[in-house]
Formats: sequence, structure tokens, C-alpha cells
Amino acid sequence: MESLQKSAEEQQYTLYKDNSWPNKQESTNHYKSGVGGFVLVHAGAGYHSESKAKEYKHACKRACQQAVDQLKAGALAVEAVAAALVELEDSPFTNAGMGSNLNLSGEIECDASIMDGKSLHYGAVGAISGIKNPVLVAHRLLSEAQKGKLSAGRIPPCFLVGRGAHDWAISHGVPPCPSEKMATKFSLSAYKRNKRKMELAEKMDTGHNQTKKSRQSSGNAAHYGCGCWAENACNMNPYSTAVSTSGCGEHLIRTMLARECSASMQSEDAHQALLEAMQNKFISSPFLANEDRVLGGVILLRCCRCAEPQSSPNVQGPLVEFLWSHTTESMCVGYMSAQDSKAKTHISRLPPGTVPGRSLAIEGGVCRLMSTASPCANEFFTLSTTLA
Amino acid sequence: MESLQKSAEEQQYTLYKDNSWPNKQESTNHYKSGVGGFVLVHAGAGYHSESKAKEYKHACKRACQQAVDQLKAGALAVEAVAAALVELEDSPFTNAGMGSNLNLSGEIECDASIMDGKSLHYGAVGAISGIKNPVLVAHRLLSEAQKGKLSAGRIPPCFLVGRGAHDWAISHGVPPCPSEKMATKFSLSAYKRNKRKMELAEKMDTGHNQTKKSRQSSGNAAHYGCGCWAENACNMNPYSTAVSTSGCGEHLIRTMLARECSASMQSEDAHQALLEAMQNKFISSPFLANEDRVLGGVILLRCCRCAEPQSSPNVQGPLVEFLWSHTTESMCVGYMSAQDSKAKTHISRLPPGTVPGRSLAIEGGVCRLMSTASPCANEFFTLSTTLA
Repeated sequence: MESLQKSAEEQQYTLYKDNSWPNKQESTNHYKSGVGGFVLVHAGAGYHSESKAKEYKHACKRACQQAVDQLKAGALAVEAVAAALVELEDSPFTNAGMGSNLNLSGEIECDASIMDGKSLHYGAVGAISGIKNPVLVAHRLLSEAQKGKLSAGRIPPCFLVGRGAHDWAISHGVPPCPSEKMATKFSLSAYKRNKRKMELAEKMDTGHNQTKKSRQSSGNAAHYGCGCWAENACNMNPYSTAVSTSGCGEHLIRTMLARECSASMQSEDAHQALLEAMQNKFISSPFLANEDRVLGGVILLRCCRCAEPQSSPNVQGPLVEFLWSHTTESMCVGYMSAQDSKAKTHISRLPPGTVPGRSLAIEGGVCRLMSTASPCANEFFTLSTTLA
Repeated sequence: MESLQKSAEEQQYTLYKDNSWPNKQESTNHYKSGVGGFVLVHAGAGYHSESKAKEYKHACKRACQQAVDQLKAGALAVEAVAAALVELEDSPFTNAGMGSNLNLSGEIECDASIMDGKSLHYGAVGAISGIKNPVLVAHRLLSEAQKGKLSAGRIPPCFLVGRGAHDWAISHGVPPCPSEKMATKFSLSAYKRNKRKMELAEKMDTGHNQTKKSRQSSGNAAHYGCGCWAENACNMNPYSTAVSTSGCGEHLIRTMLARECSASMQSEDAHQALLEAMQNKFISSPFLANEDRVLGGVILLRCCRCAEPQSSPNVQGPLVEFLWSHTTESMCVGYMSAQDSKAKTHISRLPPGTVPGRSLAIEGGVCRLMSTASPCANEFFTLSTTLA
């Protein structure tokens, strides 16, 4: 993914997990003849060149396939998600893990976060270096927290950053990886291009607004409520939801985009709710009142508890709604149900002539998961493209 | 402050700012004969021993006085808040700046966050070392972001962590401080005590649940919506609010306590709203369903726009409501209006025999700010002590 509005020091991590779906142990009670599940991933909201479209889609496809394979092998939803994310991190074309954008000092620092909609546990790392798959650290933090307190009654951390995150990862068996092996020819040339651009802009600067060229470590995708969110249905909420965001980290943080989109999903019309959330809580958010362009994207799953199968012999699984929306030029997504033989991928683009950061696109579809081994009734359609 | 439930590696930062109050430039239009303002600070929610009560209160008193001095000298609200916080950081008795708890490796890492209720800008640092006053870095991040984009259209960061945060601070003129100078005899002995306690607990462990003794860097108080929140009144919200939290970092993060308490303050009865928020969004939060004890505290100011002075000759300033609530054994607070000659301080305690983490206390008061130089009509009362 080439990130349009991203500066060299930003590391944006892409993540998705279908926690709205019961894990295999549960789902097999309902769907005896197959494993239920639906996965939706993205390879960033930003700018995806036509020349690399195949690679972006291929990364999404592999990620979906990996998640479905894991579900079929009996993995929990969070395990399947972590496995999918390893695929996306390992792709040199995504700004995550291998091939991440370099920071101002030419180093790679990554973020990752993961959330379990059932337990509502959360794990995240920010500005971590020297680890090939940061999502494995986030996942391990989540798993460790679910085991309960540490010795002497200490509360396990849900979020670690920098050197401390790295050391914790190593001591918990996550393999290290020399940072220089994580840079690719694409990320290095993007770094050089961005650095030149920055230096040129600073030369043209009159001097009163000089940028300090210090190293900067942000922890954007790792911020709670900003990078991902998952919340299963409960007494108060009829829908289970799962959300992942991408784009300009500061915009995602200050609008808490993942959590806001998740919260909006409890009203009946998912498409209308997402449209309103993206317009009122993102593009026109009072928290970004002075920004001329608000850049981000979101992928979203929801699934209604009340749609769960009855005792009818012709058993149907729940209806899954999958949506994405972005204000960036493009967003690359992939999706797959456990009944599908292969993943579908798509690059959504704003219509030509519209202004990124002020316009938005929404697309999505519905999928009725079947209890039989027959292919999922997976129907895709463009819901709308709306110009703000 | 001695932190009851805090592990050695956690750094919890205490912060409060009265952003609900118009800054001097504005307020002088209304209150010609004096500078308006009200400040509320805390020295942590945790356990405050009687033997050190005087020191905790003294730190709060100095912080309030510093904020009021700044306001009278024409400072903006965020500048007054940063100055107050420097006092709290410089006190060896608070778990912030000088005298912070040490992490597992015996190092000091600090967090700080600050938010401006008017612009809704936010600045935060996590796990920063070698800087005496982390709040000055958070404040500087906020100030820099308010200046707009960096060179080459880059979006300024609102959140930096670890080494990157340190380097950014130095390059922006924030003075460094050797970490060893920030440890005190109290923080060192607490570190040794906690480490012994942990090692003892691990020796008694059967081995299947061994804790890894790695260095850990958390960024707790720096999490957006968790450590502090400020939001001025607008069309949708009749009240300006400002909130700061303290306690177990993981509990504050996963409940987004600062933002939740702020949001609750838009209903009429502040005391009832805070009681419900602390019960439903904290102690009984579904996000902390498996925690036996939920430990934290909050201080909160609110002020109604509609209470602003009319053109009456006998001009009265707005009514400020100030509240605090905690589930920890105690919480130390200080408050002062610009008309007061000195700050008031108080250590709120759960009644003897009640269980921290499952009970809560709420106290507070109201203050009618006067337009004259006469002392503020500052009336304190205990609103209630509620046992969950």
C-alpha cells in the first residue's frame, strides 16, 4: 500500500478480526456440517496504484485464506485474526511489518492492536522495533491478560511501547528480526522520496517554521478505540460488531473512529448508520475542525444475535453484513466466508474528480452463512458512493 | 502518593486542567474587575498514608497556587494547567515526574497528557525517560499541533512514546534530566519492596505461571480519552467539562474513564450523573467483567455556558461544580478559584470497613465565581458516600 498522506515516521497497522462470530467450539453446536465464520481484511486506506493492484489484492486474499484455514482447524476467532494479520504484515506491499514506512531516522517502528469481542480484552504494542510480526505481540498480551493477575497481584499490561514492548516480546518467545531485514526496496525508496520532499519544503521555508528533524515514535494504531474495536452482542446491543481502521493516525485517534463506528452499528440500517458516522463523527468531527482534509477508512462487520438459527431442519446461519468506507483515494479489502472456496478482493476508489478528505465512498454487502457445506450465499453490491 | 494497586513498572500521571474556563483574553471582557478561573488538581487515587498527608496536600496547594498565579499573569488555561502540573511532577510524593514509581528494570518512565477543551487539541507522551517534566512535552506537542501542518504537508503528531518522545523533546528545547536524579528514597525503597514481594510470590509459584521479568513500558495516562478529557460547551452540549483520572492504568484505559465521565456530565444533576457513570461505566463495566476490584478515581469540573453573566450591573460569574469520586482507599485533591487567597485541600477516604475496588465515594461542591475581587463564594460539601 502506498500511503498518500502518510509521513515517513508514521507506522499504520491494518487489522481485522471477526470476533462477532462464535469460535469453533461454539459454532459447531449450531452448524454441524461445517465451520461458520466470515473474515474481512484491508490493505490500507490511502492510495493504491493500478500497477501494484494485483499485489495488494493478493495479500488480502492470502490473509483471508489463512483466517479461514485456521477457523477450520479449530482456532479461536482471535487466533484466526492474528494469523491473517501475519500474512498482511509479511507482505512487502502493506504498511505493516515487513515493508513498513520508515520513520524520520530511517528506522522501522510498528504498531499493532487486537481486540476480542467476547471477553472485551485488548492487546496492543506501539513503536516496536526488531519484531517481524507485531500482531503476535499484541495477541500474546491479550492472551496473557486473559490468564488473570501476575505474581504479587499485579495487573497484566494491555499496552506496551518501544524498547519495553520489544523486550517483553523476546522474553515471551516472540522471535526477533533485524530491523534492516524489514525494509524493502519500496519502503526505502519511499523514505528517500519523502525525505527529499521534506528537505526541499524546508529549504523553501522562510525559516520561521523550521521542522525539527528528530526521531519521532508515535503509537497510532495501538490507541484503544482508534485502530480496532470488537464487541459482541449483549443485553443492550442486538448486534455484534468488529471494526478496523486505517489512514492518518492523528485523525483516527482524535475521532476514536473504530469505537464510534462500532457504536453507530446498533441502529437498524447499517449503511445509513455508517454514512452518518463517517460524515458527523469523522469528516465533520469537531475534534478535527481545523483540518482541511480528514483522511481515513474503516472496514466493519456486523451480525445479529437474533438471526441465529432456530431448530428448523433447513438450518440457516446468521446474516453477516460487511461494509467499508473511506475518505482516502482508495481502500483495498478482501473478504471470505468459511464456506467459500476462495476470497474476494476489491479496491474501492473515490470517483474521479472528487476531493479526498472531503468526500467518502461506502460499499459493502451481505452474506447469509449456511449450515451446509454449500457455498455461502455471498452477495456483493455497492451500497452507495456519497460526496460530502 | 503511595499507590495501592500499582506495580513497579507503572507510571501514572496526574493531571487536571480547567479548560472549561475561558482564557484571560476572553474572560476579561466579562469580568473587568478580576481574572476568572477555577482549578482542581489531584495527587492520585490510591492510598495516602496519614503520615504523609501533609506533603500530599502541600503539593496540591502549590499546584493550585501556581495555576492561579499564571491565570492572573495572563496565561491561557492550558498554560496554567501545565504550570500546575510541573508542581505536581516536581513533588517527590506524587507518582509523576520526580519520585515516580520505577519500572521492573529499575528505570523511571513517565506519561503525561493534556487537552484543550476549546480547540479539542490533545498532546501526550508515553514511557518517556530522562525528562524532568513530561507535561511540558505533552504541552509542547499540543502547542505545535495548533500551529498547523509541518513541512511537506505532514500532520503534526499528538502522541509520542519512548526514545522518540525523548529526542523530540530535546530538539524542541525541553531540558533533559538524568533519570537517576528523578528517583527518590521513597521511590527506591518502594521499588525494592515491590520487587522483593514479586520475587517471593514467584518463588512460591509452582512454576507453571512464571512471570517474565522483562522490562515493560506502558503508556497508560497518555491514552486518548483515558487520562484526561476537556470539552467546552457547544450547540449540542450545554456544559463545559474537564476531567482527570488516576488509578490502575489498565482499568482507566479499558473503560475510557475520562471521556465517559465527561460525556455523563451533560445531564442536569452532576452528582447523580457521576454516581451512575462510576457504577455503570467503571465498577460494573462489561470491559472489566473479570476484575475482582476496579481501582480508580476521577476529578471533574463543569460549568454551564447559560450561567454566563448578563448585562446586569451586579455581575455574577458562572457557577462551577467540582466533584471527585474514587474506588481506591483514598484520593487527595486541591482546588482554588482565582478570587481565593489560598487553595483548599482534602484527602477523601472510603469509610472504614468498605472494600476498595467495589465501593465508591463521591464528594464535591459548587463555587459561584464573582466578578469582583471579593472572595469566591466557595461552598464545599460532601455530596454522598455510596457503597456499591
